Amino acid sequence: MSPTPVTFTSPGQPASYSWEATDEEVAARYGLPVESIVRFDLNTSPAPPGLVSRLLAEGRFESPLSEYPPSDYRRLVAAAAAAYGVAAEEILVGAGADEILDLIGKAFIPSGGEALIPTPSYAMYRVITEQRGARVVAVPRRPASQGWAIDIDGVRAAARTAQVVWLCNPNNPTGLAEPPGAVESLLAGIAEDALAAGLEAPIVALDEAYAEFVGKSLVDARLAHPNLILIRTASKAYALAGLRVGFAIAQPETIARLAPYRPPGSVSTVSVTLVTEALLEPTAMRANVARVDAERERLASALAGVGWSVGPSVTNFLLVRFDSPAAASRAAETLLNRGLVPRTFPTGHPLADSLRLTVRDRSENEHLVAAAAEAAERGR
Amino acid sequence: MSPTPVTFTSPGQPASYSWEATDEEVAARYGLPVESIVRFDLNTSPAPPGLVSRLLAEGRFESPLSEYPPSDYRRLVAAAAAAYGVAAEEILVGAGADEILDLIGKAFIPSGGEALIPTPSYAMYRVITEQRGARVVAVPRRPASQGWAIDIDGVRAAARTAQVVWLCNPNNPTGLAEPPGAVESLLAGIAEDALAAGLEAPIVALDEAYAEFVGKSLVDARLAHPNLILIRTASKAYALAGLRVGFAIAQPETIARLAPYRPPGSVSTVSVTLVTEALLEPTAMRANVARVDAERERLASALAGVGWSVGPSVTNFLLVRFDSPAAASRAAETLLNRGLVPRTFPTGHPLADSLRLTVRDRSENEHLVAAAAEAAERGR
Repeated sequence: MSPTPVTFTSPGQPASYSWEATDEEVAARYGLPVESIVRFDLNTSPAPPGLVSRLLAEGRFESPLSEYPPSDYRRLVAAAAAAYGVAAEEILVGAGADEILDLIGKAFIPSGGEALIPTPSYAMYRVITEQRGARVVAVPRRPASQGWAIDIDGVRAAARTAQVVWLCNPNNPTGLAEPPGAVESLLAGIAEDALAAGLEAPIVALDEAYAEFVGKSLVDARLAHPNLILIRTASKAYALAGLRVGFAIAQPETIARLAPYRPPGSVSTVSVTLVTEALLEPTAMRANVARVDAERERLASALAGVGWSVGPSVTNFLLVRFDSPAAASRAAETLLNRGLVPRTFPTGHPLADSLRLTVRDRSENEHLVAAAAEAAERGR
Repeated sequence: MSPTPVTFTSPGQPASYSWEATDEEVAARYGLPVESIVRFDLNTSPAPPGLVSRLLAEGRFESPLSEYPPSDYRRLVAAAAAAYGVAAEEILVGAGADEILDLIGKAFIPSGGEALIPTPSYAMYRVITEQRGARVVAVPRRPASQGWAIDIDGVRAAARTAQVVWLCNPNNPTGLAEPPGAVESLLAGIAEDALAAGLEAPIVALDEAYAEFVGKSLVDARLAHPNLILIRTASKAYALAGLRVGFAIAQPETIARLAPYRPPGSVSTVSVTLVTEALLEPTAMRANVARVDAERERLASALAGVGWSVGPSVTNFLLVRFDSPAAASRAAETLLNRGLVPRTFPTGHPLADSLRLTVRDRSENEHLVAAAAEAAERGR
């Protein structure tokens, strides 16, 4: 095994999450009406499920909106447990998956500690780790040609000194799932190393925000691994990002270690009721996944048709690689001039030469293809 | 000056917020229908403002609920700035005041640090401090006969080594405001001591959750004190606890120190829109304050009429003192048997002999008085 290149960050000023420009900011900068802005950078869905407007109009919630949300989110927890196939005591609710990440940081990453990220991945893992005053150990993923797979040996080795290992599967922003059995084998290796060292295994936080798009979850792995915390969300396939609801799933004893850090009511009563119903009635979620399946292939082909280099994806977004960071920036500018917002990556990021693009609805995607054609034409 | 009794807590396992029993739990325990449960323990309001059902039925929000909330909460920030009479860059939005407290902890209480609480006060200050791995310095308030006022000299002295001073004015659970000029004089003293010591002054977190009920805020004190962070909420006078929206107000440079810790979107888009409108159209809030004013005096007299010892209050709750913790428990049981939930205080708490009771609507308050009469009768 060749030595794995690993980079460290010393905690200083914590990174804050680098927020996307708002619709208004994009509109102002490019001289466009705000209604014309379309977000291809947030991996959201074009529209919420139909039950939303019906339930809002009915206005019947868990409790009157003048009261606090039910502190145990009882119905929401029951609905999530049923949807994910686990027991109620294996569920913890947060204000979006982001709050779950924060609670994991609070419960398991001590000041001066260490957390590990196979990079590139979701930016928030680094933010949470640095906010805890802990060190980020970045283990680069395999190259695109190897499906951006986690370097299992490298991560396993680095996990020996970490308190938390942040995994994302399928991974954002690379768009692919780990090879079958890879995460399970990593979990087994980490358990073996901890046993051999007589130490508690580090927490493995496995973010499955995009799991519905592949129809697979590693949720059953929790049964053998008390150090595994899975993370799910209503923001992606359920098309309810605006409601801010996410979940942790783990063995009851592990949930009990997170629970003291959970605020009594960070999730709005409206969100509690709507997400409960969406989980109980997943027809719209399934239709959304089917839409993404069909549109992703269509959009990928069309973008390839204008000469763009589109990577494979199992999620609701595509990663497009350009000849250089400068070429990626030029393409982004062409899209932005039409109000279509791509996700860009900063200088020095391993994907600085790439754009990440959300699969949206047919007509929005066609606008994107037209803009891509213009960008490709200009790039010649 | 006599030596101030100060108690310390060493950080160990952090306290978690001791959650109130849910309506379902109370109903099950007392064999009552869940609809009959009335919360006199949460200092909420009987009903949300009328604009809520209208806006929900219209279903027009800042952005579609499938998209993330606007990361800058632009319209909500503008509405809060107008409502509180400050500039937009002096406002930071959180998922309830509780998230603001958490952000203050993250930004300003280091692991191994120290935060000061004039006790008794809101339980969350201790929870947040202990979760940071920091020490709580508790400085007892003056007795009830002196209006539970902050021991200004004691707090000023203890503030010399603290990173954060947690104040609540009017104070929960004691129900009274500080004497005029007291907080200002404390702020001046803390500034003077810091200057003399050549140190940065500790952050003074001034929770004004109940400020609307007295129609006064110390918001102008921020102009002279960059270490002052005021906390406001939509949960109390605005009667929107279920939406989970709170605010920090401070000088722009102080807000900028909190901002890196703010998650990009912890507040639901529905909450953003509804609270924006409630702040812009405060008629219902003012009516709620007027209701509380009238009902508080009525309820206090009626409870005094059955022989209960009701303390003065400027808030939407009353503190009732009994002869002993056991007598308070017995009174609580009588109320609970009718589905009326009082706030009790645990053994050892300075208010273990007291119940805290929210001023609710006329008919709910009458139920409470009837139950109190029964409890008083039994207590004879």
